[in-house]
Amino acid sequence: MTLNPQYEEIGKGFVTQYYALFDDPNQRVNLVQLYNAELSFMTFEGQQIQGAAKILEKLQSLTFQKINRILTAVDSQPTFDGGVLINVLGRLQCDDDPPHAYAQVFVLKPLEGSLYCAHDIFRLCIHNSA
Amino acid sequence: MTLNPQYEEIGKGFVTQYYALFDDPNQRVNLVQLYNAELSFMTFEGQQIQGAAKILEKLQSLTFQKINRILTAVDSQPTFDGGVLINVLGRLQCDDDPPHAYAQVFVLKPLEGSLYCAHDIFRLCIHNSA
Repeated sequence: MTLNPQYEEIGKGFVTQYYALFDDPNQRVNLVQLYNAELSFMTFEGQQIQGAAKILEKLQSLTFQKINRILTAVDSQPTFDGGVLINVLGRLQCDDDPPHAYAQVFVLKPLEGSLYCAHDIFRLCIHNSA
Repeated sequence: MTLNPQYEEIGKGFVTQYYALFDDPNQRVNLVQLYNAELSFMTFEGQQIQGAAKILEKLQSLTFQKINRILTAVDSQPTFDGGVLINVLGRLQCDDDPPHAYAQVFVLKPLEGSLYCAHDIFRLCIHNSA
């Protein structure tokens, strides 16, 4: 059981890298490199997907070009396998849509000397006013 | 590597049990039984806590009596150690405070035939309007 003492920097670094790729429509396809071919799970607005190929398909179906994103919280915790759990809260605006609050969870896991994104859950926070 | 095929029911069941205890000020103290004495991590509004005793201390510091809670999304994924990752979005109102959207992540891990809450990250979604 090994906790990674760098979990905080790793969490923040991953999030920065992930959204830099996600928010650039020309680079979005490169996100696939962060997932494992078979082991990675994504739940996107309730839709469950497993494996990098299907995750790529989902990412390629997202057609918005311009994203304004503000992160309001990035909380990371170390896991006992040397990985990192990350919870992101933020606000995003796609093209000319109204801005939405959202929450995204990532779990990074070590494999052959590097970390891959083993779990990814994305949800817009709808119904967020009384 | 074992995926638990019941992850969806386990996630929903855990969330129901957790909030039934949390939302009752007379039962809130019993939440401590869901955490491990040493291995569990909680991040509560950015404050990092490790171990059931310190988590109990935090829970006992929460003095609100009445909670109205609405869950808007519960997304679960199986983990390859037989555990479950759960992402909850909801809205809660404590006593006479205004209602707030919130996000909470749990990771359940197997230990000696049952599951304990290994990771818990809670955040109110503030700044959620444009």
